[in-house]
Amino acid sequence: MTAPIAIRRLNAADSDFARHLDHLLSWESVSDDAVNQRVLEIIAAVRERGDAALVEYTRRFDGLEVAGMADLILPRERLELALTRITPAQRAALETAAERVRRYHEKQKQDSWSYTEADGTVLGQQVTPLDRAGLYVPGGKASYPSSVLMNAIPAKVAGVPEVVMVVPTPRGDINEIVLAAAAIAGVDRVFTIGGAQAVAALAYGTESVPPVDKIVGPGNIYVATAKRHVFGKVGIDMIAGPSEILVVCDGQTDPDWIAMDLFSQAEHDEDAQAILVSPDAAFLDQVAASIAKLLPTLEREAIARTSMEGRGALIQVADMAQAIEVANRIAPEHLELSVADPAKWLPQIRHAGAIFMGRYTAEALGDYCAGPNHVLPTSGTARYSSPLGVYDFQKRSSIIHCSADGASELGKIASVLARGESLTAHARSAEYRIKN
Amino acid sequence: MTAPIAIRRLNAADSDFARHLDHLLSWESVSDDAVNQRVLEIIAAVRERGDAALVEYTRRFDGLEVAGMADLILPRERLELALTRITPAQRAALETAAERVRRYHEKQKQDSWSYTEADGTVLGQQVTPLDRAGLYVPGGKASYPSSVLMNAIPAKVAGVPEVVMVVPTPRGDINEIVLAAAAIAGVDRVFTIGGAQAVAALAYGTESVPPVDKIVGPGNIYVATAKRHVFGKVGIDMIAGPSEILVVCDGQTDPDWIAMDLFSQAEHDEDAQAILVSPDAAFLDQVAASIAKLLPTLEREAIARTSMEGRGALIQVADMAQAIEVANRIAPEHLELSVADPAKWLPQIRHAGAIFMGRYTAEALGDYCAGPNHVLPTSGTARYSSPLGVYDFQKRSSIIHCSADGASELGKIASVLARGESLTAHARSAEYRIKN
Repeated sequence: MTAPIAIRRLNAADSDFARHLDHLLSWESVSDDAVNQRVLEIIAAVRERGDAALVEYTRRFDGLEVAGMADLILPRERLELALTRITPAQRAALETAAERVRRYHEKQKQDSWSYTEADGTVLGQQVTPLDRAGLYVPGGKASYPSSVLMNAIPAKVAGVPEVVMVVPTPRGDINEIVLAAAAIAGVDRVFTIGGAQAVAALAYGTESVPPVDKIVGPGNIYVATAKRHVFGKVGIDMIAGPSEILVVCDGQTDPDWIAMDLFSQAEHDEDAQAILVSPDAAFLDQVAASIAKLLPTLEREAIARTSMEGRGALIQVADMAQAIEVANRIAPEHLELSVADPAKWLPQIRHAGAIFMGRYTAEALGDYCAGPNHVLPTSGTARYSSPLGVYDFQKRSSIIHCSADGASELGKIASVLARGESLTAHARSAEYRIKN
Repeated sequence: MTAPIAIRRLNAADSDFARHLDHLLSWESVSDDAVNQRVLEIIAAVRERGDAALVEYTRRFDGLEVAGMADLILPRERLELALTRITPAQRAALETAAERVRRYHEKQKQDSWSYTEADGTVLGQQVTPLDRAGLYVPGGKASYPSSVLMNAIPAKVAGVPEVVMVVPTPRGDINEIVLAAAAIAGVDRVFTIGGAQAVAALAYGTESVPPVDKIVGPGNIYVATAKRHVFGKVGIDMIAGPSEILVVCDGQTDPDWIAMDLFSQAEHDEDAQAILVSPDAAFLDQVAASIAKLLPTLEREAIARTSMEGRGALIQVADMAQAIEVANRIAPEHLELSVADPAKWLPQIRHAGAIFMGRYTAEALGDYCAGPNHVLPTSGTARYSSPLGVYDFQKRSSIIHCSADGASELGKIASVLARGESLTAHARSAEYRIKN
């Protein structure tokens, strides 16, 4: 017999709801001093000793008996080989997913633009791809082929000439599906290194690892801490918190479907968060019953149970308007609008990483193959940030090309403002361009 | 008599040029432990004691005898009053600059988009503005009205409903041009607080200061360190390094113009960097002579001298192609192409914050009023980042709306991939949507 599951119930009508909700959502990721110190040492060692440090740390942390750096490089042919080692169904699924992800991300590509003013002055922005991007892929159990597609494809669509992947292979464990995904996504080079040392190598370069301009991809606390420390030397994507889903349901979806949608989040890890909001109290009871019924059938039951009991909740609201209010307050990574007319509510959603509309759009479809990216802002950061996209691998340069007439007129304005700031060399530089 | 000035001369043909250039460019901004400790204490105090902590720190650090928080709030009418206290020429210049900046940034506005697949599935992105943005404006001497325009206008163009500005007023010093710029840019609320305490207040909110979603704007080491620490709770713009210019000249521009363009960067602060690259050795001599001649005429001579001697350089290259190579290596914040046909070289520029094209386009024109933003990536970060823009105040939510048919097909692919990752709740959630 498995123990019954106790899931938090909240009601938005309660006077202390706001406080309870804040408490439920509260999450601060902390790198303690010991982790920081360790990571700073590793970064310093890689900067100083390059490949030698990488080999040493890989021996120590990954239990790999490598003779030298050459043993930590996977050539492109090894990726191609992986394509033959996975099942045909897996290969077809990866290829279809990649094609869909590519097609969606093509729409995000931003073009250079400019306009010409009456006096001939041209203003605009030139958009260019990064020269080189680095992709961190965790090793072992949390090594997800889908993440390889989601991180590498936007970079390639942006036109990044070289995508470098690092993936640790603890005790020699190689995930063939991950390598196959890398082959399909167009990854250019792979190094079998991981941890803070891999992040340091990508940021600063070694004899063998080329320095990249931006590092993306998930990792453990050492990887996240290292990314924070190298930020500024290179760009990084977000430091992700635990994954979360908020399901808003009008009470008309099959409760088993909703329970499984919540589990698809909860099975990730013990800190994952799955919340259901509905104006229908009886439906919340039905979903609670489905959860109790289905939980024991999950392969990852223990993880899902801890997540649901520790961080899950079923929230009753007065109506759909209040449900949307709660969604905007939470700014969830994943928002499922499992309702009859989701398009009606969409314009009122101000903050969410991804919005899964209607009863058929399970989050899992977006996680793997619908097309949009599954790297999304967590922990309320959807208030100010966006899904990983092509725009993360492009950057802009302002273009200013003044005609002689334009410079003369702008020079007069710049002169007044520069003198108001006591920056007189600025003023004089502008004044040289004023016509007599 | 002023001392002659000695500016570093480099030649790209020298065997150790790369090493010299690396050394010239090297810059790491470091917050030492004492600063970090101090800032963490201030953030903790503001989180704990709110307004009371702000009042206390403002008394202590800004030497302001304030009775309470009410004394640290500037109503909108006070901003309007400032418009009457500056000169008509200043007001007209600010208004013209604001209008041009607004017009340029309107072009950056990104729209929601979507497409419908054959089976009725809809995919896209919904673009929304941040709810609230915070703008840090330094007090005292480095208080630049132009920065108020450059930071606030993109936020308002993005549609941010509330822009909150903080600006310290040490010993009661109020910069009327800064307040006038805030009025013109449409800033909604102003608090006369500064330092790490102002950043903490914007990030976490107090009884009087509303919490914002993103903090932008320059500041001293305490402000920069505080921004680093609150990153994650809120978004931040870049942590800026010293300002830099790279001028590429074919030798045909008036050397006095080029010297003054270099000074317009060098006068900012002692760490600012001004570099000239030219294939014409005689021209480099002429500019050196102009620098020596004009330096003593600068109001900020001492600062410019320290900057030019410490971090400036005149670099000789073989030809324009090599000049562009050097520019891409440096990835400068400001790049002046003071050449006959700048459009010819533009497509080869891969990394630069802003590109000032032709002999008439002095950087100062872009700093104040051409239209593009003057908040630009420094210290080589143009390799992966962009000028501040409307896109920094908008964010995207992925949209996925599967039709029943679409979900059925995608469910099959998701099922294979999820099982390949041992995430079986994901698989089952997807499989529920597969038609029999």
